[in-house]
Amino acid sequence: MSPDEFRRMGHKVVDWLADYQQHPTRYPVLSRVKPGEVTDALPLHGPNQGEAMEAILHDFEKTIVPGLTHWNSPGFMAYFANTASGPGILGEMLAAGLNANGILWKTSPALTELEQVTLGWLRDWMGLPSSWFGMIHDTASISTLHAIAAARVRRVPEARLTGKWPTLRLYCSEQAHSSVEKGAMALGIGLDNVVKIATDDQFRMDPSALRAAVETDLAYGYAPFCIVATVGTTSTTSIDPVPQIAPIAREFNLWLHIDAAYAGSAAVSPKFHWLLNGAEHADSLVTNPHKWLFTPVDLSILYCRQPELLREAFSLVPEYLRSAQDPRALNYMEYGVALGRRFRALKLWFILRYYGREEISRMIEEHVRWAQELSEVIAREPGWEVCAPTPLSVVCFRKAVSDAENEAILNRVNAGGEIFLSHTVLHGKYVIRIAIGNMFTTRDHVFRAWELVSA
Amino acid sequence: MSPDEFRRMGHKVVDWLADYQQHPTRYPVLSRVKPGEVTDALPLHGPNQGEAMEAILHDFEKTIVPGLTHWNSPGFMAYFANTASGPGILGEMLAAGLNANGILWKTSPALTELEQVTLGWLRDWMGLPSSWFGMIHDTASISTLHAIAAARVRRVPEARLTGKWPTLRLYCSEQAHSSVEKGAMALGIGLDNVVKIATDDQFRMDPSALRAAVETDLAYGYAPFCIVATVGTTSTTSIDPVPQIAPIAREFNLWLHIDAAYAGSAAVSPKFHWLLNGAEHADSLVTNPHKWLFTPVDLSILYCRQPELLREAFSLVPEYLRSAQDPRALNYMEYGVALGRRFRALKLWFILRYYGREEISRMIEEHVRWAQELSEVIAREPGWEVCAPTPLSVVCFRKAVSDAENEAILNRVNAGGEIFLSHTVLHGKYVIRIAIGNMFTTRDHVFRAWELVSA
Repeated sequence: MSPDEFRRMGHKVVDWLADYQQHPTRYPVLSRVKPGEVTDALPLHGPNQGEAMEAILHDFEKTIVPGLTHWNSPGFMAYFANTASGPGILGEMLAAGLNANGILWKTSPALTELEQVTLGWLRDWMGLPSSWFGMIHDTASISTLHAIAAARVRRVPEARLTGKWPTLRLYCSEQAHSSVEKGAMALGIGLDNVVKIATDDQFRMDPSALRAAVETDLAYGYAPFCIVATVGTTSTTSIDPVPQIAPIAREFNLWLHIDAAYAGSAAVSPKFHWLLNGAEHADSLVTNPHKWLFTPVDLSILYCRQPELLREAFSLVPEYLRSAQDPRALNYMEYGVALGRRFRALKLWFILRYYGREEISRMIEEHVRWAQELSEVIAREPGWEVCAPTPLSVVCFRKAVSDAENEAILNRVNAGGEIFLSHTVLHGKYVIRIAIGNMFTTRDHVFRAWELVSA
Repeated sequence: MSPDEFRRMGHKVVDWLADYQQHPTRYPVLSRVKPGEVTDALPLHGPNQGEAMEAILHDFEKTIVPGLTHWNSPGFMAYFANTASGPGILGEMLAAGLNANGILWKTSPALTELEQVTLGWLRDWMGLPSSWFGMIHDTASISTLHAIAAARVRRVPEARLTGKWPTLRLYCSEQAHSSVEKGAMALGIGLDNVVKIATDDQFRMDPSALRAAVETDLAYGYAPFCIVATVGTTSTTSIDPVPQIAPIAREFNLWLHIDAAYAGSAAVSPKFHWLLNGAEHADSLVTNPHKWLFTPVDLSILYCRQPELLREAFSLVPEYLRSAQDPRALNYMEYGVALGRRFRALKLWFILRYYGREEISRMIEEHVRWAQELSEVIAREPGWEVCAPTPLSVVCFRKAVSDAENEAILNRVNAGGEIFLSHTVLHGKYVIRIAIGNMFTTRDHVFRAWELVSA
């Protein structure tokens, strides 16, 4: 494709996207296609001869777009809502066109350095210790896997060579995200050694139950090595009491990893600094700008107090990748599994600069305010119940009827195409969730969602 | 950012990229910045107030671009060269703007289905069995980690729960990529249990040495479980004899994973179908379109014969992600560590359609032809030696002088800014590599590189 054709097609694509942004309700939020429908509409084999870009874009609009669930719609309030903000998209466009790959510092110095600088800015805004090291991964699951691997290598340095260790035990609350179990499973720790700690009536880890579990395991001869505390759980956004958990981690010499994948972004606002109270004593923390920081997927950040432990867990540095080891020329590949590294920092740098800390804080505070306002409205509504506190931007609620009826309500609302909500299960009951996090969602959208649900 | 502002800025960015493509030699290929130079040019703290996008783009051009190594330059012939082709960039632009996330089938059906369809097209072009399952990861390292995890779960199904297994042993050649060791290390197999098999005089795994190693391990009571054969090694693009290795895998019931991260793309051409001879007997294979298929980083594909083993290794499916389990509504998150899933298939679909199989084959065949032609020229040049066969698009050679002098030659060429080459070590000697893989590289660029080196 010649530069001229790229220019022409690029303008077309930008116009299409601007138009898409201008008409966010043109498509149902939740795709209505049936399983296999997109597949059946596509040829079974790829073409031998090339095709015109116009024809391809035409098929994209005709076949692909109706098969999309529109995460960028203001009516998207499922899971954790997020936004592909304008500056974020522009950052991705440049990253794709430049095609920089940060395998080593020298394979694109600005990629590595901008990642460190931008993650430093965000770290400081979040109130984390200024000495912490930051590194981008694709998802929180991969970030957490790296944290647990570093925890293992601290406890059993020879494990990387031998593949042998005592029965290592990891602790997280019963509300922790499944990525903790997945990481432990992948690393070979074993699901049986992920100890789920009970939570209190607000879905927060019970520190005394944690202490008891660690002491019991020690009595059995197990080797406790890691605690994962969650700041903003996936179901209810509950916040584990890190100030009470951190001393237990210290007492038993356990790695403390904080899963702030969703809520970490809120700590950018001084009003929500308290969220990370105690996190300064942690060993690592994950936060996902692609959750609540208006960043197109994917961008997850792993912060780590002692990056040398990540390096110990993952560095090999074969000869053909050897490079001069200037301390300011960091080779990220030594700190994780992946070798290739996309220029993801660019979009985050654009976003932090374009909006600035105050506007980001204002938007996030607004999301929390609307959620809390809605939570109060639902609590006052006869026949409905709020099923968890609303410390952040997610409201968990249900109608005081059967699970099947609540599920039917959710399905009906989602089928309408205006709003997309998801659900969870709390105390064995089916619960509807409204998750606010898209910057195009207004207070009206939030209350429209409630209007649809309650009707 | 309003849709109008996005449109205006998007056009600016497209124009900048088209201009960048039009003047590929405007910047030195290898960045000339010193370690810390980009960092020092950036503020220590992020801004409180937002800034204008024009100002940010201005800083991007002034501060970031000089700090980039230009992977998209036709003079980039280091590592494995690749291209951000026009259709690939357009695909990334749309993926960023749509912000689809394929956590579950329903969170964007077209994302999941297009991934399966496109990976099916490529699988068929490569001549792999049509029943194989394909899945995109960010890098080959992560793909290979997943393959090894599936191999483990096949050998020791209870490992995912217990974290206990006999001493598992994995085999790869001494020329295998470091990602094999990294994957084994991360998964808890242990570096000591990665057995490096000797290679022949053409850097290919010696099947009789492989058999001997497996038999010795069995005699010691170890548990062999996996072989990684490489089709296109990183140093020399040597090709392990898969037709001889596959029967050994079958005899000892070992998982056979093929690392075709680089060379897999060449199998798209019928002339290079032979590369994957024997791969039909493998259990899994990794190939990276972001290496030689003109695809912007990142896009690595893991093909797997028995996806149910990936699922066994990684699926948890907690309640809040439960969804109706129609067999045509695949939830990729059950087949790997990551939950979030970017719409990477879009760019690959665009590329396969825009160029078509014949043009892709033609470009790759041309790269190989130039490399082989150059190899013959160097072999005839007094005082120079070709250090490995040239089956594909990489030439390994050195001047018959000291390592230090060869390194000095390489550094001088790279400092010139016109060409960027990398090196490796073969038989303990420093070797220069010329890797052809960028679609904008012409025969003239290749011979210009040799002219600069030989001068």
